[in-house]
Amino acid sequence: MDDIITLDYGSGGKKSSRLIEKLILPKLFNPALGALADGAIVEGVEKLAFSTDSFVVDPIFFPGGDIGKLSVCGTVNDLCMCGAEPKYLSCSLIIEEGFSLASLEKIIDSMAAQCQKTGVQVITGDTKVVEKGRGDGIYINTAGIGFVKYPGLSPHNMRDGDLVIVSGCLGDHGTAVMLARSGMMQGDISSDCASLNKLTESMFNSSKKLRVLRDPTRGGAATTLNEFIEGSELGIELEEELIPVRPQVRAACDMLGLDALYCANEGKLLAVVAREDGEKLLEAMRRLPEGRDSAVIGRVTREHPGTLVMKTALGGRRILQKLTGAQLPRIC
Amino acid sequence: MDDIITLDYGSGGKKSSRLIEKLILPKLFNPALGALADGAIVEGVEKLAFSTDSFVVDPIFFPGGDIGKLSVCGTVNDLCMCGAEPKYLSCSLIIEEGFSLASLEKIIDSMAAQCQKTGVQVITGDTKVVEKGRGDGIYINTAGIGFVKYPGLSPHNMRDGDLVIVSGCLGDHGTAVMLARSGMMQGDISSDCASLNKLTESMFNSSKKLRVLRDPTRGGAATTLNEFIEGSELGIELEEELIPVRPQVRAACDMLGLDALYCANEGKLLAVVAREDGEKLLEAMRRLPEGRDSAVIGRVTREHPGTLVMKTALGGRRILQKLTGAQLPRIC
Repeated sequence: MDDIITLDYGSGGKKSSRLIEKLILPKLFNPALGALADGAIVEGVEKLAFSTDSFVVDPIFFPGGDIGKLSVCGTVNDLCMCGAEPKYLSCSLIIEEGFSLASLEKIIDSMAAQCQKTGVQVITGDTKVVEKGRGDGIYINTAGIGFVKYPGLSPHNMRDGDLVIVSGCLGDHGTAVMLARSGMMQGDISSDCASLNKLTESMFNSSKKLRVLRDPTRGGAATTLNEFIEGSELGIELEEELIPVRPQVRAACDMLGLDALYCANEGKLLAVVAREDGEKLLEAMRRLPEGRDSAVIGRVTREHPGTLVMKTALGGRRILQKLTGAQLPRIC
Repeated sequence: MDDIITLDYGSGGKKSSRLIEKLILPKLFNPALGALADGAIVEGVEKLAFSTDSFVVDPIFFPGGDIGKLSVCGTVNDLCMCGAEPKYLSCSLIIEEGFSLASLEKIIDSMAAQCQKTGVQVITGDTKVVEKGRGDGIYINTAGIGFVKYPGLSPHNMRDGDLVIVSGCLGDHGTAVMLARSGMMQGDISSDCASLNKLTESMFNSSKKLRVLRDPTRGGAATTLNEFIEGSELGIELEEELIPVRPQVRAACDMLGLDALYCANEGKLLAVVAREDGEKLLEAMRRLPEGRDSAVIGRVTREHPGTLVMKTALGGRRILQKLTGAQLPRIC
């Protein structure tokens, strides 16, 4: 094989086959599943969740992860937020001519490792190559199928007085990627990129009164919480002092002119739960490494329908709207 | 809304929401399916087929179709080739900054029309925007789920003496796109881009002795037939005179230096069927517009294991290998 990707690798002919057979299949696919055509077949299921994301993160390697790991975690987490146990992924690559095969291998290794860690399998895929200057190294799309274990999660279930919980510190992914992109010192900031399926499984087992789950990726926690209450008769009130943000992330945000509440996260979730189940849910979440810093950060209220309000540390009140414009392009 | 796509539309914030809500959802989604999060839930199924493809065709508009129609047909057809009835699609867009909203709308309209014609529904999606110069207008990924109606299709089922059938004329898509790209006169050549689910449904009903189905896209019919016999104790013998190719496509191929047997098709399939079922299968196929020109083009043989041989019109024998290198980059 060559050192770099040429257009030939996208032809659907011999070179495409070689790339897929030598580099991708041995790492990503389980041979027990049989020969791989353009589609795959899944045995007997009941109720399915289906999700997709394209990943265009820049740079493709960053502290705490890379585009490969991200492409597994991102789709896995979307399925978890549907109340599902993620099972199968597709993997579709758009590679720019001239991309290094060593980098491609590193990315595929990273996808494979994350799939194994998560317990999901890639069962179908596709590879396209575009000319130099018509892409940016590599873009990855994953779609995923999961089996629904906790049906009915939806913002419509929220009630006055419900608790808003976050599974850990906010803003790590967004700041890590922005620092990596700008070439600035990273300090000890790295992406929180992680699969949340073990965390959600333990949440599903600990409470039957979960209202809604969502992972605050692009647009951050403030945008996600706004989505919960859009057009609703309920609002959400946050308490700034309760929101976990690492001091180094807060400092980086100040330096970069960002706000951790609008920064992307890739290994965190927001949950709304009935007040009476808050304590046991938190306990279950904190037992797992990915939920260790879980905290109640606010509550659902009738007082300001459709509005997200934060009580600031200084005693003021700040209205948080959805993100407008591109605070952080190509963050995932 | 603006006239062109800016990076803001990929932020995950207000502009992203507006693009999705104003332009994409009303056209592509069925409101009866409820609010759209990052994932979707599908009710009770038995055995599933799952497929994905990224579409990077250049140009994005060509005679007979566009990247939107192609992105529906391509994934639908992959599911059909698994013996499945296609049901649900995901749609993920990677848009280059500066892309025109009018073109985006045209593409989404085209996807919507093709979904309706096919009888499939888009139930989840994603939109990313990359900077000017980091993409090429628009790339679309679709993944699809179908319910398996005809299990067990595989090249391993082929037997000596089986018939090889093609559902119509070869090379239309590849030549139409290459002519459009080069700016040459099209004559009356247009892409065969079409959903094949109605055709495969009628094939499933007409024979229980289908061995394998495959749509000859990138790499063309010669590459697909080679995939059927790779590492096998069987070979395939084609008869050049039986292979349907439109005269204008043949002429365009000569002019462009292409070979219709290696040109991509987007609305054709190759089938291998037991000899005794050939006649009734052909009859069923010819009853539908997308199978009107179906023909037996060759047979499976023990005589040259793993090799695809074509008896030429002049009485010679030509070995057809898999496509090597990039005959037609970005054809789908």
